[in-house]
Amino acid sequence: MKPSIPQGTRDFNAAVVLKRQYIFQTIKSIFELFGFQPLETPSMENIETLMGKYGEEGDKLIFKILNNGLDNPSKLEKTEAGFKNVLQGKNDKSITERALRYDLTIPFARFVAMNQNDLVFPYRRYQIQPVWRADRPQRGRYREFYQCDADIVGSNSLLNETELLQIYSQAFSKLKVDVEIHINSRKMLSALAEICGGLDRLTSITIAIDKLDKIGLDKVKEELAQRDLESNQIEIIEKYLQISGSNTEKIAAIKSLMGDNASAKVGLEEIEFLLSHAGALQQEVVVDFTLARGLDYYTGIIFEVKAKNVQMGSIGGGGRYDNLTGLFGVNGLSGVGVSFGIDRIYDVMDELQVFPDNVQAGSKVLFFNLGEKESETSFQLLQQVRNAGIKAEIYPDKSKLDKQFKYADKKNIMYAVIIGSQELEEKKCTIKNIQSGEQKIIDQDALVAYLSEN
Amino acid sequence: MKPSIPQGTRDFNAAVVLKRQYIFQTIKSIFELFGFQPLETPSMENIETLMGKYGEEGDKLIFKILNNGLDNPSKLEKTEAGFKNVLQGKNDKSITERALRYDLTIPFARFVAMNQNDLVFPYRRYQIQPVWRADRPQRGRYREFYQCDADIVGSNSLLNETELLQIYSQAFSKLKVDVEIHINSRKMLSALAEICGGLDRLTSITIAIDKLDKIGLDKVKEELAQRDLESNQIEIIEKYLQISGSNTEKIAAIKSLMGDNASAKVGLEEIEFLLSHAGALQQEVVVDFTLARGLDYYTGIIFEVKAKNVQMGSIGGGGRYDNLTGLFGVNGLSGVGVSFGIDRIYDVMDELQVFPDNVQAGSKVLFFNLGEKESETSFQLLQQVRNAGIKAEIYPDKSKLDKQFKYADKKNIMYAVIIGSQELEEKKCTIKNIQSGEQKIIDQDALVAYLSEN
Repeated sequence: MKPSIPQGTRDFNAAVVLKRQYIFQTIKSIFELFGFQPLETPSMENIETLMGKYGEEGDKLIFKILNNGLDNPSKLEKTEAGFKNVLQGKNDKSITERALRYDLTIPFARFVAMNQNDLVFPYRRYQIQPVWRADRPQRGRYREFYQCDADIVGSNSLLNETELLQIYSQAFSKLKVDVEIHINSRKMLSALAEICGGLDRLTSITIAIDKLDKIGLDKVKEELAQRDLESNQIEIIEKYLQISGSNTEKIAAIKSLMGDNASAKVGLEEIEFLLSHAGALQQEVVVDFTLARGLDYYTGIIFEVKAKNVQMGSIGGGGRYDNLTGLFGVNGLSGVGVSFGIDRIYDVMDELQVFPDNVQAGSKVLFFNLGEKESETSFQLLQQVRNAGIKAEIYPDKSKLDKQFKYADKKNIMYAVIIGSQELEEKKCTIKNIQSGEQKIIDQDALVAYLSEN
Repeated sequence: MKPSIPQGTRDFNAAVVLKRQYIFQTIKSIFELFGFQPLETPSMENIETLMGKYGEEGDKLIFKILNNGLDNPSKLEKTEAGFKNVLQGKNDKSITERALRYDLTIPFARFVAMNQNDLVFPYRRYQIQPVWRADRPQRGRYREFYQCDADIVGSNSLLNETELLQIYSQAFSKLKVDVEIHINSRKMLSALAEICGGLDRLTSITIAIDKLDKIGLDKVKEELAQRDLESNQIEIIEKYLQISGSNTEKIAAIKSLMGDNASAKVGLEEIEFLLSHAGALQQEVVVDFTLARGLDYYTGIIFEVKAKNVQMGSIGGGGRYDNLTGLFGVNGLSGVGVSFGIDRIYDVMDELQVFPDNVQAGSKVLFFNLGEKESETSFQLLQQVRNAGIKAEIYPDKSKLDKQFKYADKKNIMYAVIIGSQELEEKKCTIKNIQSGEQKIIDQDALVAYLSEN
């Protein structure tokens, strides 16, 4: 059998794991600097926890786990009935009781609801774990991928949004990725809907505006017309979408467009609070009234992060949502969160070549193996080198020098330490810099000091 | 709906995640010191990669993933036939093509086989990832748990076994857990079988000996009798099992028992090589001829780690195996590996209370929120504190002092920084040590220095 892995999944070799861990570690350290604490939830959730939370399309993309023991004859009738339900696209718990996590948000809400009496609110958690989706695999879209979220629940204060903005700015600066952080408030879209015929138009308008980046203004206008918006309403929306200039200019323009609409007023207050409190950020913040963030559950400030100098969609997003835990019977908790798109951030950093050189560092030293006696001495020296905290290894088998050099070279090992019969006798060792070819002979006693300093 | 999680799975809150990460990080740093590099494989494997690799019982414990789109009418006939197969306990790829990883060893072998032309041999990898088993949940046994493995493939040298022994010793010393590392060679068991009627008795003898810890010598003898071993053979096995004393005494005793059996000779050479090369270890190494390691694929040296001073089964194990990648068509690669039982190590460390105090450190500082103006100043100071690398947060809402103190206390935050109207006016802040109750008033300008030093 020729081995393979499932479509849409990936093996990560050392080089990739280490670069990914660098991203995780960088973001994690900032989350913790801001007082967020880690949470991990199980890969599997009860199927009723997940179903119905992601819309009809989402439900279809959830990976369900087959119950074990379906060949149990005493359950035959139930199982057969269950299969019939599955054939009709229904869930049946006699066939599948569990499913793989589809995102980190619903498990987080489930956790908060389950542990509301033990948690300290406002509860600040971060979570970095894989999720699974039965999407059609394509470039940049996988069936198993990591999400990396930070949320605060139980506080309405805009200081939370401000801190999340700071987190984005600091994290991407530390990762050396220049970004634009777009911000808007969902309340601006509500205001627009109110002005254009009433709040019941909000969904239509949001869906259409969300496509602006992809299809352009003309097609958005066509779509709005198809969704029964009248031409004078579409005109207002066009004006709204064409607002441009600096943040100050945009805010002035929207004020004149929205007049004294109450939602717009509150939305603008939110945006202005963020801008005035975030302080001097290292990354650019762009007020972007065209930002919609799809049909998610957001109700207030929304965020989206785009990398500069690289063609890539959004590499982060989030916002304020109300009552997410209401899905699990716990009402009245407002939350706000951000998410980092790890896979895309990885691709951006690879393209920009901004990973630090030392991220992929494996062993610094390889002791060559030139025979039993020689390797015994090498092995003893190796212990000293490792005790000094230097990553090192010995080639375990006596092999041709050529093969051992190749090994060191392929593994990007900096130094070869060679002890042959002559070095053995003289208590010396040859140190060779694999990349430069330079080599010198030193006392074995001086090896640890040499490797520590070079 | 009252939310819950599947049986046998766990949510890990911050305290637990941080302690688990401490274990992972400690072991990882030692793996890397020894030149091992990380690998991550997908949670899902193709079902044919896993089935048939873990015996009949193992197959039943594999979590299989239901294919999506089973309600597709064009596939109705195939799907119905597939369900019939599942009812009979057979796998059918029209129902399930993928399954969750059951251990890290088979995915590792699959990865090596797939990437043999790109890998540098001897290939040293470590892997720390969850696995899933549909075992009946019970105390200490979960359906989702982490494995933590290090393996070297492509080298027969006993230096590899020696290094793995050193890894165990260094890792548990760093974790402050006193252990006994039991070692044996499977070749000693082969020798015993040869002496007791031939190698075809090896499986029976191994199964019986493996139960010694649990059922005791008398029951092992009963089992051997049931497995058709004759009384003179059982007598030899009893002598073998009763070998005791220091490592030197045990080796002397087994030499006299085994005579010049060739397997025993090689096995003893392996064990003696380890003992003579490992150097002065911080942990106790016990030669234990009763060690069998179940029916796994081991062929040479085997390891098992037991914690001292705590009632707990094995917290680590491993050994030499031949030709694991042969399962995937790549022959001739010998390997050796060790595994750390993370969940049990966690329990042992919790019982012994050896986690360092700073592992669970969240925010060091909480800025109280006493109103809009006060919090603006606090928020600015907060930036300075974080810029100094100190984990800190602000209570986002203006709430009763009492509530804010409770929050700080429950989150084990060390300092409250309080800026009320008076402090605001005088550019001062009150610093209160939450645990001791001690408090003082200092200049706002002196805050960062104070928190850095205290």
